[in-house]
Amino acid sequence: MFEAAELGRKVSREDFDAMAPQLRTELLDLQQRLRAADFPVIIVFAGVDGAGKNETVNLLNEWMDPRWIVTRAYGPPSDEERERPHYWRYWRDLPPKGKIGLFLSSWYHHPFVGCAMGDISVAEMEEELERVVHFEKTLADDGALILKFWMHLSKKEQKKRLKKLEEDPLTAWQVSDTDWKHTKLYDKFVAAAERLIMHSSKGHALWHIVEGADSRYRTSVVLNTVRDAIAKHLAAREVADKIAAELKKPAEQAKGPKPVALANQPSILSSLDMTKSIAPDDYVRALQEQRGRLFHLHRKAKDRGISTVLVFEGWDAAGKGGTIRRLTNAANARNYQVIPIAAPTEEERAQHYLWRFWRHLSRAGRVTIFDRSWYGRVLVERVEGFASDDAWQRAYNEIIDFENQLVEAGTVLCKFWLHITPEEQLARFQLRGEIEYKKWKLTEEDWRNREKWGAYEAAVNDMVEKTSTTIAPWTLVEANNKPYARIKALTTVGDALETALRNRG
Amino acid sequence: MFEAAELGRKVSREDFDAMAPQLRTELLDLQQRLRAADFPVIIVFAGVDGAGKNETVNLLNEWMDPRWIVTRAYGPPSDEERERPHYWRYWRDLPPKGKIGLFLSSWYHHPFVGCAMGDISVAEMEEELERVVHFEKTLADDGALILKFWMHLSKKEQKKRLKKLEEDPLTAWQVSDTDWKHTKLYDKFVAAAERLIMHSSKGHALWHIVEGADSRYRTSVVLNTVRDAIAKHLAAREVADKIAAELKKPAEQAKGPKPVALANQPSILSSLDMTKSIAPDDYVRALQEQRGRLFHLHRKAKDRGISTVLVFEGWDAAGKGGTIRRLTNAANARNYQVIPIAAPTEEERAQHYLWRFWRHLSRAGRVTIFDRSWYGRVLVERVEGFASDDAWQRAYNEIIDFENQLVEAGTVLCKFWLHITPEEQLARFQLRGEIEYKKWKLTEEDWRNREKWGAYEAAVNDMVEKTSTTIAPWTLVEANNKPYARIKALTTVGDALETALRNRG
Repeated sequence: MFEAAELGRKVSREDFDAMAPQLRTELLDLQQRLRAADFPVIIVFAGVDGAGKNETVNLLNEWMDPRWIVTRAYGPPSDEERERPHYWRYWRDLPPKGKIGLFLSSWYHHPFVGCAMGDISVAEMEEELERVVHFEKTLADDGALILKFWMHLSKKEQKKRLKKLEEDPLTAWQVSDTDWKHTKLYDKFVAAAERLIMHSSKGHALWHIVEGADSRYRTSVVLNTVRDAIAKHLAAREVADKIAAELKKPAEQAKGPKPVALANQPSILSSLDMTKSIAPDDYVRALQEQRGRLFHLHRKAKDRGISTVLVFEGWDAAGKGGTIRRLTNAANARNYQVIPIAAPTEEERAQHYLWRFWRHLSRAGRVTIFDRSWYGRVLVERVEGFASDDAWQRAYNEIIDFENQLVEAGTVLCKFWLHITPEEQLARFQLRGEIEYKKWKLTEEDWRNREKWGAYEAAVNDMVEKTSTTIAPWTLVEANNKPYARIKALTTVGDALETALRNRG
Repeated sequence: MFEAAELGRKVSREDFDAMAPQLRTELLDLQQRLRAADFPVIIVFAGVDGAGKNETVNLLNEWMDPRWIVTRAYGPPSDEERERPHYWRYWRDLPPKGKIGLFLSSWYHHPFVGCAMGDISVAEMEEELERVVHFEKTLADDGALILKFWMHLSKKEQKKRLKKLEEDPLTAWQVSDTDWKHTKLYDKFVAAAERLIMHSSKGHALWHIVEGADSRYRTSVVLNTVRDAIAKHLAAREVADKIAAELKKPAEQAKGPKPVALANQPSILSSLDMTKSIAPDDYVRALQEQRGRLFHLHRKAKDRGISTVLVFEGWDAAGKGGTIRRLTNAANARNYQVIPIAAPTEEERAQHYLWRFWRHLSRAGRVTIFDRSWYGRVLVERVEGFASDDAWQRAYNEIIDFENQLVEAGTVLCKFWLHITPEEQLARFQLRGEIEYKKWKLTEEDWRNREKWGAYEAAVNDMVEKTSTTIAPWTLVEANNKPYARIKALTTVGDALETALRNRG
């Protein structure tokens, strides 16, 4: 695989100097155009030690405008990072739309070095790479331009270069004992690299193998590739925008009847027994009981650093707020956070839609309650046409992957759909209009959403079907009777915590 | 001081139940009104152990809508927190406008417990309280409503209550060995509390001492105080907004002539020798030299966890970008971040204006370069009238306090004003219009700003006069000659790093 990167290719100083001014102007110009574009550029550097990763990153910062570049390199995770899923630190560092992110020792570091050093098996490396591929695909699908450079050196060149780096006082710091240790394992590194590139070079995020021995050659290849890729992506997005605008009108016309037809199909929701209820006395007793139980369980989970994430979705007026309040009553306020999800902020809009949920993940042992959630993508955004068909359809897998990462990190995850019948909703809307301090809760939008009941029901059905997994199942809550719904939710959370505490005893 | 809080005041269950529904409705209603208001509410709970701090915070979350409440309690700082100034963690947790933040074990914890336990002297406590007072004043000046509750118990009551808490399995976890240890030091705690309250109860952030023995009494006092304070603050802000609108027009008319008059006064800037320059050959040599020097110094600072913050202010076209690029060339891109400051984002606008600078402070050993900075408040915001006279005038002290905290945390801080003459600026503007890839840099705004040269000069003069402190001096850079300016900036940063490394040898 690396033969072509050991040919000793070079660029003379004259050629380089002749090319440099124009290339630099073009890069700066593209950076300006990028600032107004609706996608970020993510550039990953990896490869063998001494092949010029650092120098190239420095040069990109030097040639381009460093104000619109974010450079990130990763060492051992901080304690705040360790207490969240592994990818949390990459998500929080993602460049917003219009900026360029340069990543060193990134998400490739562990699978690559781990496998080369024999700390993880080839199979484990490949498993890790699947997550990598999914991560990059998720970002690319959202429009991100992803470029990956694998900087290569032959065995001989590597030794030569490390020596040279060591001799120059300006660069000696770059060479560590680890680097020399790695050279001894050169063959293993190259074998791991080959597998890594094979498994993670995808259409949306190709690896570019760069011969790293000659700095001018290396620089020329990287800078030219960056320039061409940004220019191409800018042009492609413009075309895509035009096509999307073109397609919009007929698509909207076609949208009307579909959901109505679906509304007449039996759905998962229609199978629920909506007469379920609990008597007032039983409710008071059960509430006390569950509250006490949850209090203890939350406490234990806090002590053992087990985080909880609760997701509440449901019809307007289904009682999400009331149920959440019963849950927060059963925990110490120090220890939970309720995150109401409404329209994203400006900073959130400049990122992948999942970014704003990643950012709210709490430190170990905390309870995070989402009042509406990432499922908005496949519910309101789908029904109202805020997300393209493509976007909400691929969201199912993106969500499953996100939740898998939560659960793998040890988080207890419960997802609730609070279901009421249209008749019950109408009664509650009318009641809200009558009670003074609840009036604010009832908006024009609620009435509008109600008209689309059928479309929403179809969306809920698909959502449950596609995202109720073994490790992150949906709990459908019959919520026509509020007490019943609350007890069911509290009991479910209690059971989940108990299981988690037992399994990790 | 606490006699009035040891009277054994009580509220009967009947009275409480009679009051509760209305109070709760009022609180929920106020919370809705608050959501649309332009200030946050910050509520601090402190006091002796067992006096009901936790319960009250839980109750506030229970009675009000937890979605618009942020509850924060602090333990030992995380490593990410330890690597920044002490108050970083409080700044990052501040509620945005329209929300309520409840703070436990907050900025009062260390001065209070530290002094009571004898870990710090009374004088040290008072010094820490000065920072507290300044912090709260800064937020209150920006419109925040600050409420502080000191929960008190008599010695006898405290013992009784801790015992009772321990007996109830639902609350036993709240009582730690530390609590019992603290009771033995009751008198010392009370003495420290008295001093603390005396020093930190200010008009903008009064302490309310609450007798904590009876939960219904305690709850009634806190909830009523919260309700009244929010209602009053909402009303006061409405009046203030009206007055501000009323005053606006004549104020704008009066604004005109003032800066022009000031422009004719000699200013700090006019004392600069603007003919300073460096010959091309000397420049190349000096640049190489300073670059090498900085590279080593940055490296050492990184290893020793010494952070650097560089601030660049200056006239349009004074060469900030070029100077910054020479500095970033002298560091490893892994290790610095250039933060361009333009209009604040939506999330930033919902916070105190300093919040967005606090959030950008990097972990230990990193270099953060601000291309424009918090000084915008006293420059562009002053001259353009974006900030009220009150707001920019008090900003000088807020800035000094912010910078003091940086320096106390061990950060190397350099502030540069890049100065050019109006003639030089004109020449550079004209040149920019001619060079293709620099055209984007020249905007209508640049020409407009130029017309206000006098007003800006007066503002710069005041800024330097008021914020050039011993620990954070301004470096005025004669920048008509770009090479000279760059070398001066690089040398200044190098000297500052060298001094810091030596002093902390």
